[in-house]
Amino acid sequence: MALTVVGSIAFDSVRTPFGERDRMLGGSTVHFSLAASFFTEVRVVGPVGQDFGDDELSVLETRGVITDDIERMQGETFFWRAHYEYDMNVAHTDETQLNVFADFDPKLSDGARRSELLFLGNIDPGLQHEVRASSEAEFAALDSMNFWLENERQSLVAAIGEVDCLMLNDAEIRQLTGEPNLARAARAAMEMGPGVIVAKRGEYGAALFSSEGFFAIPGYLLEDVRDPTGAGDCFAGGFLGYLDSRRAGGDSVLDPAILRQAMAYGSVLASFNVEDFGTDRIQRLAKDEIDDRLRDLQEITRFDIASASSSAS
Amino acid sequence: MALTVVGSIAFDSVRTPFGERDRMLGGSTVHFSLAASFFTEVRVVGPVGQDFGDDELSVLETRGVITDDIERMQGETFFWRAHYEYDMNVAHTDETQLNVFADFDPKLSDGARRSELLFLGNIDPGLQHEVRASSEAEFAALDSMNFWLENERQSLVAAIGEVDCLMLNDAEIRQLTGEPNLARAARAAMEMGPGVIVAKRGEYGAALFSSEGFFAIPGYLLEDVRDPTGAGDCFAGGFLGYLDSRRAGGDSVLDPAILRQAMAYGSVLASFNVEDFGTDRIQRLAKDEIDDRLRDLQEITRFDIASASSSAS
Repeated sequence: MALTVVGSIAFDSVRTPFGERDRMLGGSTVHFSLAASFFTEVRVVGPVGQDFGDDELSVLETRGVITDDIERMQGETFFWRAHYEYDMNVAHTDETQLNVFADFDPKLSDGARRSELLFLGNIDPGLQHEVRASSEAEFAALDSMNFWLENERQSLVAAIGEVDCLMLNDAEIRQLTGEPNLARAARAAMEMGPGVIVAKRGEYGAALFSSEGFFAIPGYLLEDVRDPTGAGDCFAGGFLGYLDSRRAGGDSVLDPAILRQAMAYGSVLASFNVEDFGTDRIQRLAKDEIDDRLRDLQEITRFDIASASSSAS
Repeated sequence: MALTVVGSIAFDSVRTPFGERDRMLGGSTVHFSLAASFFTEVRVVGPVGQDFGDDELSVLETRGVITDDIERMQGETFFWRAHYEYDMNVAHTDETQLNVFADFDPKLSDGARRSELLFLGNIDPGLQHEVRASSEAEFAALDSMNFWLENERQSLVAAIGEVDCLMLNDAEIRQLTGEPNLARAARAAMEMGPGVIVAKRGEYGAALFSSEGFFAIPGYLLEDVRDPTGAGDCFAGGFLGYLDSRRAGGDSVLDPAILRQAMAYGSVLASFNVEDFGTDRIQRLAKDEIDDRLRDLQEITRFDIASASSSAS
């Protein structure tokens, strides 16, 4: 059993109102795989340069992540520099060096190809299509971003048509479908192919749409948010990692109750991620903490309906 | 038993992507009282001009709202013209005629003064202070807006210090406290006096902070949103109306379970309000529909935690 993730591996330099860090380990596959590693075996497919060393590898391997499919290329690792304003809802990119990522042409090993679950991180939709075509995954999910929506729309819509689950920010789902109402936008996105749509809503949580209906979970409210980078990928990692663990246990990943619990785990992993810079918090995270916060999240979203209802007409 | 609301009564001309209406009945007390009327007896305190007729009164009276405290003044009723862009998250004000509202000096009748619950709608915080001082309410809630935050901050903070519950948009709570993190902002707002803080989050729902902790409810997702005007006031009406009904039944309005259910009713009433222009949807709303949607809202926010938890470390 395994879950394969394809996407970026990066060095991130990030400044927030709470500090500044240079060249932290980052990238979508890194945040994703660390989060998913609490639930299942994860394989990372992504390119690194000659500046990527054993220290970085060991962060992943310490969490049991399989790094055999990381491709070492000539040149430097993808680099991203950004800062966040006081409210931290939007990342402002100051510098992007694609480096080895510019020539990335993902190839799946036998192990990666045979993974039952696949996450296509935010890369060129043409590459997402190729990876999906060569994978035997029974359930594939896809992330993207406004850049591809604006510049490779046709290719992106084709890639979306080949996956089972689309995970985007709510604004991106609206942009993709040209429909300002999220419920209608999600329905339009389902008509492109995926049976499951996950709308990520930042600090407000996330919403799930499927043929079974609608589910919404608010964000776990934190007093200390230090670095939002990677929250969406940690959400995806918690979500798909949990789904893969249930699949391995004989359950259907399309079971509505399982999808909802996966949403809750996604929300919990994202909430831990933002408590510290880069991967620091997830690196020192324990499974107990995840389960405790999951129960917390259930508690802070639960309301009962009084049996003896009210009053006036 | 009763709930008194003090604030604006208005004629609203509103254009949204789904249509345009002239001089609809509106204003915070109107939206609030219609929503609250499903739970308890509501008294409206607010000024109207000579252009306010029996048709408008009968909208309120048909729902059992007590209109004795509506003050008829020389001149015209408060008028507001606005439009919403495609995404409808923000109202763009095109015209405001304060008219009789400019000279409004609320006076509470005996009945209004003795109401056990009081809602201070968004008016000059100096007036909110006066009303609070003359009211015998055991539980008072206050709404406001960025205009008062920017122009009458000291007076607003004083008024907030005199109420039990503050209901603002999340951005306004951040602005009030100068704290970008909502959890910290809510705690800072509680230090100003109120034991209960309700952060309204538009389509994303609402959050509740009290000494008992935190509760979050996502918005009820609709495919058809025609006019968002008054949603916040309907939320407040559903919230306080339900609290008053429970208080009348002998319960404490500070009971955490009751506050949570009040949040859910607030969310439900707001969701109905936006389905049509002005007060149209709430005017034809039935209690059964409210209870059905409350159960729906509970269902779409519920997740179970599998007893046999997963897998890897």
